[in-house]
Amino acid sequence: MEMNPECIDEHRLFGGRQYRYRHHSASTGGPMTYSVFLPPADKQQQPHVIYWLSGLTCNDENFTLKAGAQRVAAELNLALIMPDTSPRGQDVPDDAAYDLGQGAGFYLNAAQAPWAGHYRMFDYVADELPALVHSQFALSDRQAVMGHSMGGHGALMLALRLPGRFRSVSAFAPIVNPCDVPWGRKAFGAYLGDDENAWHAYDSSRLLAAEDARPLPILIDQGDADPFLGLQLQPEKLEEPARRKNWPLTLRMQPGYDHSYFFIASFIEDHLRFHAGYLNA
Amino acid sequence: MEMNPECIDEHRLFGGRQYRYRHHSASTGGPMTYSVFLPPADKQQQPHVIYWLSGLTCNDENFTLKAGAQRVAAELNLALIMPDTSPRGQDVPDDAAYDLGQGAGFYLNAAQAPWAGHYRMFDYVADELPALVHSQFALSDRQAVMGHSMGGHGALMLALRLPGRFRSVSAFAPIVNPCDVPWGRKAFGAYLGDDENAWHAYDSSRLLAAEDARPLPILIDQGDADPFLGLQLQPEKLEEPARRKNWPLTLRMQPGYDHSYFFIASFIEDHLRFHAGYLNA
Repeated sequence: MEMNPECIDEHRLFGGRQYRYRHHSASTGGPMTYSVFLPPADKQQQPHVIYWLSGLTCNDENFTLKAGAQRVAAELNLALIMPDTSPRGQDVPDDAAYDLGQGAGFYLNAAQAPWAGHYRMFDYVADELPALVHSQFALSDRQAVMGHSMGGHGALMLALRLPGRFRSVSAFAPIVNPCDVPWGRKAFGAYLGDDENAWHAYDSSRLLAAEDARPLPILIDQGDADPFLGLQLQPEKLEEPARRKNWPLTLRMQPGYDHSYFFIASFIEDHLRFHAGYLNA
Repeated sequence: MEMNPECIDEHRLFGGRQYRYRHHSASTGGPMTYSVFLPPADKQQQPHVIYWLSGLTCNDENFTLKAGAQRVAAELNLALIMPDTSPRGQDVPDDAAYDLGQGAGFYLNAAQAPWAGHYRMFDYVADELPALVHSQFALSDRQAVMGHSMGGHGALMLALRLPGRFRSVSAFAPIVNPCDVPWGRKAFGAYLGDDENAWHAYDSSRLLAAEDARPLPILIDQGDADPFLGLQLQPEKLEEPARRKNWPLTLRMQPGYDHSYFFIASFIEDHLRFHAGYLNA
């Protein structure tokens, strides 16, 4: 495959353009797919950039098709970047379960067989993809990051691991303490190995509690009818250290909402306006 | 299957509720699936009702998931009803092509084998489904109808066939003259037989041109980058008789837009506000 991204789908919407690209990734050693929304090109200013990280089983299309984000992004002059959740393909190790392997990369660099090598999603979303999209498009260097469930973990973890990179971070129903919940323990054990100390570098509640953590604005929405709330998500585990350290974290419990994209669609406008406020400040 | 609809999916969104139901249809002689969005129940007035008819290959979920209509419907106190595009199942005749059989009911009552019997979508959307949803929910008796492509044909045809039923009708990239274009000729020939006179009762451009046609407000959006525009859609064939008769038809050519749900999402708010204006008048 050529190193230059190949455009595999393109549509006009809300006066802007939705693109889907495939490229060879140096990080994951194989083809990767990502989607990009560019707002209408009628503005003076280059669009600020928001990354969306998706949850288990998703690829770059779920948010693109179901969240309704492009309407507001067009209005606010925001570019949206949607990576896939893992490397894909016959050459890429996989697991029969939905929460390990393809579609379940957890935005980390795997350290042990059979995952090490291809499963380097941290490098991909932290370095390779940002460099790529900035080389493709005329984008502002101001960035924010958001995500859902496993991608909420990815967004929070990335923002805490890369201080100064993002002006704000937000999440829908994020996994905030992967070291302590079944989804995270299974994935981290498989990808990172038995030494749980190595897991902490990917755990948002531990990263936020660290002494040298640098504050940034955080918005979290969580449905109280989400079937994963108690066992897998536990957003209060992030709220506690944030409160102790007086961090700017807003956690909103949304009554009656579940874990679906209907929940995301209902509040995505709030998240985009939240980020735009900091990106434009 | 019980005669009472069975709720097979339910989500909260935009303060309202999205439902998916299965029921036994007397019209089509088998199970049918439909989706319903109910706006927040905090209004004094019962919601007015808008039917959405989908295009080829779609079912009740495409619009539900991709159009972003519920946000505006919630604001405007509108209920949305999304039927499937055909009967489904192993007992239902089908064809290997995407534009005939399951997923391609064309909103008509088939008259010949093997389609007659199950393929009675006109009866289903004109009579059975409205009676059913009004028995399920407290809805206003004011209604509008809209659709996409084959469903745009369905919406226009239904509105013209049932004068006084709908206050307004709108369509995205509709088939307006099925008797004259390949999709329509293939389907009508299969479902209705060789006598083309029998086809005219399902052809919007002919229904609109009829002397006794009763005017109603019509809004049509059409992308000029739609690959089906010239061969299958030809909206100017509806515009000509409307102009002669001084009907309230607005046809908007949207530059750069294609046939996808990205196009629909970009303009659905205009359609809902168009209908709300007549429903609330």
